[in-house]
Amino acid sequence: MIDIRKLIRIVPDFPKPGIGFFDITTLLKDKQGFQEVIDTFANHFKDFDFDKISGVEARGFVFASALAYKMNKGLILIRKPGKLPAETFSQEYELEYGADAVEMHKDAVEPGEKIVVIDDLIATGGTVKAACRLIENAGGEVAGIGFMIELCFLKGIDKLKKYNVYSMLKIEDD
Amino acid sequence: MIDIRKLIRIVPDFPKPGIGFFDITTLLKDKQGFQEVIDTFANHFKDFDFDKISGVEARGFVFASALAYKMNKGLILIRKPGKLPAETFSQEYELEYGADAVEMHKDAVEPGEKIVVIDDLIATGGTVKAACRLIENAGGEVAGIGFMIELCFLKGIDKLKKYNVYSMLKIEDD
Repeated sequence: MIDIRKLIRIVPDFPKPGIGFFDITTLLKDKQGFQEVIDTFANHFKDFDFDKISGVEARGFVFASALAYKMNKGLILIRKPGKLPAETFSQEYELEYGADAVEMHKDAVEPGEKIVVIDDLIATGGTVKAACRLIENAGGEVAGIGFMIELCFLKGIDKLKKYNVYSMLKIEDD
Repeated sequence: MIDIRKLIRIVPDFPKPGIGFFDITTLLKDKQGFQEVIDTFANHFKDFDFDKISGVEARGFVFASALAYKMNKGLILIRKPGKLPAETFSQEYELEYGADAVEMHKDAVEPGEKIVVIDDLIATGGTVKAACRLIENAGGEVAGIGFMIELCFLKGIDKLKKYNVYSMLKIEDD
């Protein structure tokens, strides 16, 4: 059993002064750490009834992809605006200053399909909430949400109260 | 055996008029197609001697990640400028108009490590050549390169003559 917490590096003052950034690249390059994270997700979701896994650009792709492969599910890419070539649904979300959006192909989810949403980290939760709305707009159902890291002090999870949420690693203090 | 070619959609006039974009999202959402692509990569690289797999942002992450998991290797993220939080190597490459760059953490590769580079598609080859240089600048060795799709008519592979390159799907005509 690997202590995945020890494989995550906190980089001070990124992306701006005063912010400590949780850098997962030190975990990913460690083959045992990477296996452990994917296996832990797979174990958590093994009894869930679902069809596909969606990942949010760009770090979310890393975990969603390996997990979809491991669990033999289809993979859906939820991307930044302008990246997906065919017809998309778009969903805005608020940032500290201003707004951003995520997009998903209209044909990514069939009505009634059950989707697990994966991201590396939940901070304020805006992106993942928008991702869930995209899935619901397409007629899908969010079967569960998984994060490797939850920054509990930012209370992003409060935005996701109606969902079944799993956080592998809970960071309690700022 | 799945015909992965049939699962890839060509979207006309994206990102600009006259360009046909090879859309892999239709393949990824098909669980059998996705398994087939990763298993085919794994079969190709199974006798290669290497330590880690690197993927180029963002679609490259999808294939590199699942393959690294499947083959029990470490995963390296090669990203657009400004995305990686710790100290990086940076490598510019030329575009049709202007230039862009890719970055990799300085500690992603140990001297002497052997790396397989994965990307979804090779067009003109500039990005992947820059990715290989990053690995070599860090003291690593490129053990092999894998693409799901090669646009042969763009001759990007000519930039990679010194490497062992594998293309799963060769598109011959424009």
